[in-house]
Amino acid sequence: MYFYRKYGSMNIIDTYKAAFLSYLENKIIVKEPINLYTPIQYILEIGGKRLRPVLTILTCDLYDGNHQEAYDAALAIELFHNFTLIHDDIMDSAPIRRGKVTVHEKWDINTGILSGDAMMILASQCFENYKPKQFKKLLKLFNKTALEVCEGQQLDIDFETRSNVSIAEYIKMITYKTSVLVAAAMKMGAIIACAKKEETDKIYQFGLNLGIAFQLQDDFLDTFGDAATFGKQIGGDIIENKKTFLYLKALEVCNKQDRDKLLSFYNTKNQSKTKIQDVTALFNRNNIKEITITEIENYTNTAFETLDELAISDKKKELLKNFGLGLMKRTI
Amino acid sequence: MYFYRKYGSMNIIDTYKAAFLSYLENKIIVKEPINLYTPIQYILEIGGKRLRPVLTILTCDLYDGNHQEAYDAALAIELFHNFTLIHDDIMDSAPIRRGKVTVHEKWDINTGILSGDAMMILASQCFENYKPKQFKKLLKLFNKTALEVCEGQQLDIDFETRSNVSIAEYIKMITYKTSVLVAAAMKMGAIIACAKKEETDKIYQFGLNLGIAFQLQDDFLDTFGDAATFGKQIGGDIIENKKTFLYLKALEVCNKQDRDKLLSFYNTKNQSKTKIQDVTALFNRNNIKEITITEIENYTNTAFETLDELAISDKKKELLKNFGLGLMKRTI
Repeated sequence: MYFYRKYGSMNIIDTYKAAFLSYLENKIIVKEPINLYTPIQYILEIGGKRLRPVLTILTCDLYDGNHQEAYDAALAIELFHNFTLIHDDIMDSAPIRRGKVTVHEKWDINTGILSGDAMMILASQCFENYKPKQFKKLLKLFNKTALEVCEGQQLDIDFETRSNVSIAEYIKMITYKTSVLVAAAMKMGAIIACAKKEETDKIYQFGLNLGIAFQLQDDFLDTFGDAATFGKQIGGDIIENKKTFLYLKALEVCNKQDRDKLLSFYNTKNQSKTKIQDVTALFNRNNIKEITITEIENYTNTAFETLDELAISDKKKELLKNFGLGLMKRTI
Repeated sequence: MYFYRKYGSMNIIDTYKAAFLSYLENKIIVKEPINLYTPIQYILEIGGKRLRPVLTILTCDLYDGNHQEAYDAALAIELFHNFTLIHDDIMDSAPIRRGKVTVHEKWDINTGILSGDAMMILASQCFENYKPKQFKKLLKLFNKTALEVCEGQQLDIDFETRSNVSIAEYIKMITYKTSVLVAAAMKMGAIIACAKKEETDKIYQFGLNLGIAFQLQDDFLDTFGDAATFGKQIGGDIIENKKTFLYLKALEVCNKQDRDKLLSFYNTKNQSKTKIQDVTALFNRNNIKEITITEIENYTNTAFETLDELAISDKKKELLKNFGLGLMKRTI
């Protein structure tokens, strides 16, 4: 654990993040044609938690790999993630991302499409510094993950117009749309550190379950969170009729009367505060808050059980566990 | 030359094309989520010349490689090419492709974006059957080429609103937008056949120059072609004010009077037949027809000079030359 030794008690996650940001800064170069590369620079510079690339570097280090070898893969993950943001924002007609105007709003849809395409290719190119065997392992994981992310986005779009989405389908959608990239980010770190296959598979499962827990928590906080710490308007999902875990679970467990009520609420474009209050009350009387907390805890615990099985020191397990708890501390 | 031996005098290109099509048919599978994969099946099934994949297989065979090993790379090239068509058609608001409605017209823009993204990843996955060293060689060439194609598309978009595009810039644009993929298709075939680096570089140059010649010929035929054999309306580029080689060359060589005339023609959305006649007359009195033919011949000859240097038998050189002449026979 290079950084741990070097920086002692300094928060290791923050240290990795700072190191990644300085690496990223040197890599963002706008060249000709500037209309292709400027939007790429823009989306990379407006921020983001850099959670995924940090996980790649951290995992490499935890498996005693040379952390410096992890930066290229970490960058690939971050580039790919930002490519999906550009294209998803076009598909969602989203005007704002990270508090700034989205790429297709600042420029236009065509610029968003083409710069996104280029970014996806740049992500793949990041792996070219790895030797052939590592390169192939990483690229296969990258391509598999990238395709799953596309499938997840398609499922998300499909669900908007479907009335019979099951909880299992919803979990599959959020797994593909977001968790597989977190899981792949960690697995890549382990691959670069030349960890055994069982280990790389387990760290993938850890990332996957933690990712699902995180995503469910996002649904939870949107309705039951604290406006001051959540950073978004509480009830946004209800206003937008989003078929979240809360909504789908409510439909599954409630009686016919509440079911009809919920369906009728989600069939109108009612943007009133009363709607948020009424739907939240419906969720409350059907124990959706408790059910969701239990579900989040289940995925978090599954992640931690996998963590226990890893062939790394207890100290390192604790570090990963604290990281997971840190992500989850907003709810539990 | 497996096919040459097997099929004797049957046209080798047609044979490869038939073999590729039957390979392709087995590979096109629509799976869940079907809204993601159906548009991919659609664009692949509405036809196309399959020129690029055939060149990959042909080149592999010419270098005494096992042609069966070339199909995966050939498919990658074809998938990538069709991905660019889907996204380019969105950017150009094109309603028709290969006589059929475009993907974004048949479905919608979001479907076009996402299915295109998935197709790009599927293309990259095609290489996964190659062993690590070959895989890395092919992927590096693929990524480099893919990025150049994006840059070419960006230059094309930029040129629409620029009034000072030079011939050199135009050649760079068509090289990146179309020729590099033809060149890479051939080089991949040579790589799979384990040809020496000098050879793979030369075959790339052959494909590149032939691709440029072919693209210039497309500009030429749009104005000076025979409506019966060209398949598109003659004068379409003039009506759409497209800054083709003919237009840019005319601006370069004509006098002030003609220059002002040409600029004013291209500043209006005049769709009359008179416009086509007037601009064609302007091109004629400035020798644009002859200049363009010479330019096409120059690129074709450069391609053939490279061909002469290849370390393959004269019979094989003749085959490639005839293939090139076949592509060009519409003009020269």
